[in-house]
Amino acid sequence: MIKRIVTIGALLFVLKASAQQNLVKYVKPLIGTEKMGHTYPGATAPFGAVQLSPETDTVSYELNGHYNGEVYKYCAGYKYEDKTITGFSHTHFSGTGHSDLGDFLMMPTVGKLKLNPGTAKQPGSGYRSSFSHVNETAEAGYYKVKLDSYNIIAELTATNRVGMHQYTFPKSEQSHIVLDLTAGIYNYEDKNTWTYVRVVNDTLITGYRQTNGWARTRTVYFAMSFSKPFKSYGSKYENQNPVYRGFWRKFDQTKNFPELAARQIKMYFDFDTNADEKVKVKVALSPVSQANALENMRFEIPNWDFDAVKKQAQNTWNKELSKIVVNADQDHMVNFYTALYHSFINPTTYMDSNGEYKGLDQDVHKANGFTNYTTFSLWDTYRALHPFFNIVQPSRNNDMVKSMLAHFDQNSLKMLPIWSHYANDNWCMSGYHSVSVVADAVVKGVFNGDAEKALQACIVTSNKRNYEGIGYYIDKGYIPAERSGISVSNTLEYAYDDWAIAQLAKKLGKTDIYNEYMKRSQNWMNNFDKQSGFMRPKSENGNWISKFDPMSTHGQGFIEGNSWNYSFFVPHDTNGLASAMGGKLNFAKRLDTLFSMHLPDEFFAETEDITREGIIGGYVHGNEPAHHVPYLYNWAGQPWKTQAQVRRILEMQYRPTPDGLGGNDDCGQMSAWYMFSAMGFYPVAPGSAEYAIGSPAVNSATIHLENGKTFSIEAIGQSSKNVYVKKVTLNGRLITNYSLNHTDILNGGKLVFLMSAKPNKGK
Amino acid sequence: MIKRIVTIGALLFVLKASAQQNLVKYVKPLIGTEKMGHTYPGATAPFGAVQLSPETDTVSYELNGHYNGEVYKYCAGYKYEDKTITGFSHTHFSGTGHSDLGDFLMMPTVGKLKLNPGTAKQPGSGYRSSFSHVNETAEAGYYKVKLDSYNIIAELTATNRVGMHQYTFPKSEQSHIVLDLTAGIYNYEDKNTWTYVRVVNDTLITGYRQTNGWARTRTVYFAMSFSKPFKSYGSKYENQNPVYRGFWRKFDQTKNFPELAARQIKMYFDFDTNADEKVKVKVALSPVSQANALENMRFEIPNWDFDAVKKQAQNTWNKELSKIVVNADQDHMVNFYTALYHSFINPTTYMDSNGEYKGLDQDVHKANGFTNYTTFSLWDTYRALHPFFNIVQPSRNNDMVKSMLAHFDQNSLKMLPIWSHYANDNWCMSGYHSVSVVADAVVKGVFNGDAEKALQACIVTSNKRNYEGIGYYIDKGYIPAERSGISVSNTLEYAYDDWAIAQLAKKLGKTDIYNEYMKRSQNWMNNFDKQSGFMRPKSENGNWISKFDPMSTHGQGFIEGNSWNYSFFVPHDTNGLASAMGGKLNFAKRLDTLFSMHLPDEFFAETEDITREGIIGGYVHGNEPAHHVPYLYNWAGQPWKTQAQVRRILEMQYRPTPDGLGGNDDCGQMSAWYMFSAMGFYPVAPGSAEYAIGSPAVNSATIHLENGKTFSIEAIGQSSKNVYVKKVTLNGRLITNYSLNHTDILNGGKLVFLMSAKPNKGK
Repeated sequence: MIKRIVTIGALLFVLKASAQQNLVKYVKPLIGTEKMGHTYPGATAPFGAVQLSPETDTVSYELNGHYNGEVYKYCAGYKYEDKTITGFSHTHFSGTGHSDLGDFLMMPTVGKLKLNPGTAKQPGSGYRSSFSHVNETAEAGYYKVKLDSYNIIAELTATNRVGMHQYTFPKSEQSHIVLDLTAGIYNYEDKNTWTYVRVVNDTLITGYRQTNGWARTRTVYFAMSFSKPFKSYGSKYENQNPVYRGFWRKFDQTKNFPELAARQIKMYFDFDTNADEKVKVKVALSPVSQANALENMRFEIPNWDFDAVKKQAQNTWNKELSKIVVNADQDHMVNFYTALYHSFINPTTYMDSNGEYKGLDQDVHKANGFTNYTTFSLWDTYRALHPFFNIVQPSRNNDMVKSMLAHFDQNSLKMLPIWSHYANDNWCMSGYHSVSVVADAVVKGVFNGDAEKALQACIVTSNKRNYEGIGYYIDKGYIPAERSGISVSNTLEYAYDDWAIAQLAKKLGKTDIYNEYMKRSQNWMNNFDKQSGFMRPKSENGNWISKFDPMSTHGQGFIEGNSWNYSFFVPHDTNGLASAMGGKLNFAKRLDTLFSMHLPDEFFAETEDITREGIIGGYVHGNEPAHHVPYLYNWAGQPWKTQAQVRRILEMQYRPTPDGLGGNDDCGQMSAWYMFSAMGFYPVAPGSAEYAIGSPAVNSATIHLENGKTFSIEAIGQSSKNVYVKKVTLNGRLITNYSLNHTDILNGGKLVFLMSAKPNKGK
Repeated sequence: MIKRIVTIGALLFVLKASAQQNLVKYVKPLIGTEKMGHTYPGATAPFGAVQLSPETDTVSYELNGHYNGEVYKYCAGYKYEDKTITGFSHTHFSGTGHSDLGDFLMMPTVGKLKLNPGTAKQPGSGYRSSFSHVNETAEAGYYKVKLDSYNIIAELTATNRVGMHQYTFPKSEQSHIVLDLTAGIYNYEDKNTWTYVRVVNDTLITGYRQTNGWARTRTVYFAMSFSKPFKSYGSKYENQNPVYRGFWRKFDQTKNFPELAARQIKMYFDFDTNADEKVKVKVALSPVSQANALENMRFEIPNWDFDAVKKQAQNTWNKELSKIVVNADQDHMVNFYTALYHSFINPTTYMDSNGEYKGLDQDVHKANGFTNYTTFSLWDTYRALHPFFNIVQPSRNNDMVKSMLAHFDQNSLKMLPIWSHYANDNWCMSGYHSVSVVADAVVKGVFNGDAEKALQACIVTSNKRNYEGIGYYIDKGYIPAERSGISVSNTLEYAYDDWAIAQLAKKLGKTDIYNEYMKRSQNWMNNFDKQSGFMRPKSENGNWISKFDPMSTHGQGFIEGNSWNYSFFVPHDTNGLASAMGGKLNFAKRLDTLFSMHLPDEFFAETEDITREGIIGGYVHGNEPAHHVPYLYNWAGQPWKTQAQVRRILEMQYRPTPDGLGGNDDCGQMSAWYMFSAMGFYPVAPGSAEYAIGSPAVNSATIHLENGKTFSIEAIGQSSKNVYVKKVTLNGRLITNYSLNHTDILNGGKLVFLMSAKPNKGK
């Protein structure tokens, strides 16, 4: 018998669950589904491999496969603004600014068979259905919607690797379930490379889908089981030659033909249904094989009890959410637990129940003592999400670091991941921030693997000379503007990352490496123009570029930000930066200006990923580079301004509505920022064990640590007016430096804030 | 440690080899490479997974990917008539009438880098090279050629799963090895679906190639190791988008970039070479993974000694060839051992050294106690090749039957293979002749698996109503002409196959099944038109079709044959057929007419796969349906005519020259016919243990059986004139019925022919 690696003791848990609070009720997965949040409303388990969620559109349907920029809008496949649903697919990113996935779109229909989705303007032109939010329910682990065009109720729930559909049909002799293997997110360029489906019997099909999307080469295997035998089935091939060549006509391959292989396959399954008859479908995924998918299904959902699976999913969510028990006003309760939910749905499990997964080398590997994860949006998540995991999910974060090290071992480039998903790296964004995640986990004692090897992986990655200007950075201390469109972002981020490597080396007693990387970490100075006081691109000849506008984000050497924001990006040397900017007082003034300036529309228009509400003055919260900036007032001698700005951001950028997120949630980074800040502290420089203290927005929070201890926060007198910290104590001892250490948390204890409507400007 | 399944005890063998005869010297792999033989001249091990052989062209190069019929010509990738070589690829069919494979074309070049093959008319226009047969050597397990355009000597050898190249370069700072992943046989319709290559280090690359060719969905994994580090490498993508999307430009992916994934990849590896420097490349294949390919390489060729590998390959061949020790004139020695060689190169091993293989369900399986084989050209090979194996390769044939049963288990259709290769079935040709192979192996005691299950698989296959007219055949006893273009072939072949199932059932004591299938086996009568005396298509209403021409092969209900040939296709009821044709004398006259008639050009032109020399009168030896026909004189009371015709065919259809084969070798079927006939007997109806006695063309032959016994044939007075059997004795006992039983062979013994120039017409 195959030894199973069980990440959640599901059965045991069911017994204990009744003692837990119902925190699921605060989770509103629809938050962020409108405008720029890019979250999805469907059902998923914590860190689940399956994200079973409705698609309201993907760009390909409207425009015959030609890119029109709309693909960005549908990163998560669902837009709250839309009026129709095309179906339910099994994989989704949460909050990303780039798209992919959307595997195995399934749609129940009644009446004349339609195998194209049709258009939103004419829902009747295809299999898509109208729907109304009135008939829609989205909860952690559960989604329900009425498909008005067919009078079908669709319900979804999920375990880690299995999605379960329950369709309540009307009476019909023409009930269908459509499986559109040509559908997908980021689908505009003939994304499918191959698909394969086999009908094992009249209730089970298996297969796989290979795509060349954002992930260059990605295969997802499935097993799909129906609660009721289909009476017939068929397929249609889109725009392609017959799948068999030569003597392929020996069977009719369009009707009841059980072995399909082609680039573009659409399938349908026919049923007779009685009024209110429920047809259920279990869809298990695997990165490795159909057999593993089937095994995952049998292991995770052995029966057909949809309600029990839903209950288990929500019990599992309650268990995870209970890691932090918060008391706050209703809006903050919803915001907090939705943020906690959004932070606990990525990275995602990328491993079968038998421990097998696909590696970066595209071969199958068996995880040795860890759960393999994927979907690492590291430019975003190194900042607050992984530090957050180091407090509330250290075991998982340990496994995530191990997954990143497996990535390093398995790719030919020998690099830690940049932005990776499904055994691929797409190298999205700047820096090599894996090293921050690795260093933070080691420094905080979370990583229990071979730390020397981990350090080596960081060093190798940071010396990949032909990657994005690293050679120049090493040789000259900066990247010439001629050599990279994002020369300054890169230099600043590399400098921070190098500092993180130095901290890791220090922890391991490697003084030489520490010294080398501390030196590299000072490279930020090479892009700091003392005269203008801004970070500024520098030419190969050492001169500052002349056409420089610190408001602009285009052609200025930055990515997802302008110099105004990036000039504060020295999280590891805040004192050095304050000093460079003319001392604490001038540093504070610069921060004041950032938060109060007006960003003209022309520059806002250049700012991707965020709504107008995602901006406060010139501070852009919807993008990540400035996430630490509100906390910099602590180093400017004006911590009360950190407190005020943090509370302002918490109120403005996070609202409990579908359009409540001011920018992409970015795989939980925005949510992690919310939770840290709402609890009153933030990791300004991951790799350091220190947190900067801000202003809590909750009344209290109790963190249940994996070591069995609890760390709680209490904010006495907290209100929307009392945003200032009059006094803060740790276990009764006064904190004067507005700093908290990770050890303070690990030891358990109590952080008590006394809140006030007036800033505490005294010593 | 993984348990290895070793099919050949290579090391042990090396010690014993010296005692064996050098039979390799008689093997001329170039036989059949000209005109219609469709054999390949390159290096392969017995039943090897690798067939490393030169390509002289594949149609796609000349015609920009458009089909022009030439694809048929290049089934084996090499035509003796051609003047240029495009490279050396690792997989080839032998003697087929349909094409596929040609994986991983490699070409060593010098000078300006060229990544297109160019055309045969202008060899300098691409990487192809001129060559001359004067500088070409083709032996069992070894191939050598001088590439005139580059002054490079290329040598090839192979173990089961690994091909080894040895290129002797001139002095150059511009030496290259091109790896063209876009090349392939049957390549005219964008055959590649995806390719992946990773450069592990400067001497090792791994990857895979997925194609949609004749095999609908096929993946071959490889590991490729160079004896000398390449100084640089690069790639080019043909007609396609960048392989990475979005942020893919972070690396230059064309030069020294180690992770490639795309539909169409060409690669090159650069070297500095000294004069006469040998660069060697080992290429291991796997149906499962890159890791398995690498493991196969390390297991089978752990070193770099090309000569030792070649020696081992030829020792292995000598061992296999020694299973029959023949004495004959030089031409027959060459013909016989080349036929033996050609019969021992398919089916091919489809399993890694660790026992893993890809199943028809496209998932990975582990062979449980057998070697998994693929490339089953069963319409051809059930006739003589598998019966031949039941004598000289019973262990392998046992495994082949097990491979066919695994095929049955793993495909959704639940059918035994029709024409299968690489975990696919292409359903080529008529009948379900797997059942003949299964029955013959069980009846002859070769199959040691679950015979009841084997019978069940035969029964299920024979009742697949929606396959090629089987439903009509079952219901009406024939297939209406309106329902199939090859209605008569199918009925006749199903009837024979059903008889084979009956024999299997009888062996297992299943009387009901025996009776049922014996009844079905009489269905041949339903297509026999007593009035014309021919097999003839019948309409749905029971009337014979009116436009009937027994000479024509088109639109007459036959495949690869006309009614003249197919009318004799009742191998299982020869007496019944003779009787239907008016008794023995009339039967003999009909046979006489067949062998002496003139087939007008218009009908010959319709006859695929054969040369004009492949025809004797109206008897078409180059296609298989009539292979048993020369032996039917035994049932017509005129065995001397069998003897004369067999000898005539042996002389006319098999010559020791490149154009020496009168038709496609068809994966060894033509060769197996040769060997049986040259030894003096033939299995007219596989599934029966009886052989019909003909006229031996060898002086003597000794078969070394796996049971340790020997069976020998001696032909006293044999010569090209003394083709008649005056007397034949088995262990001294006179044989009067011109029949030999399989048990007679298994028991060991001696079959002695006394030959004469005059027919023995007496009793």
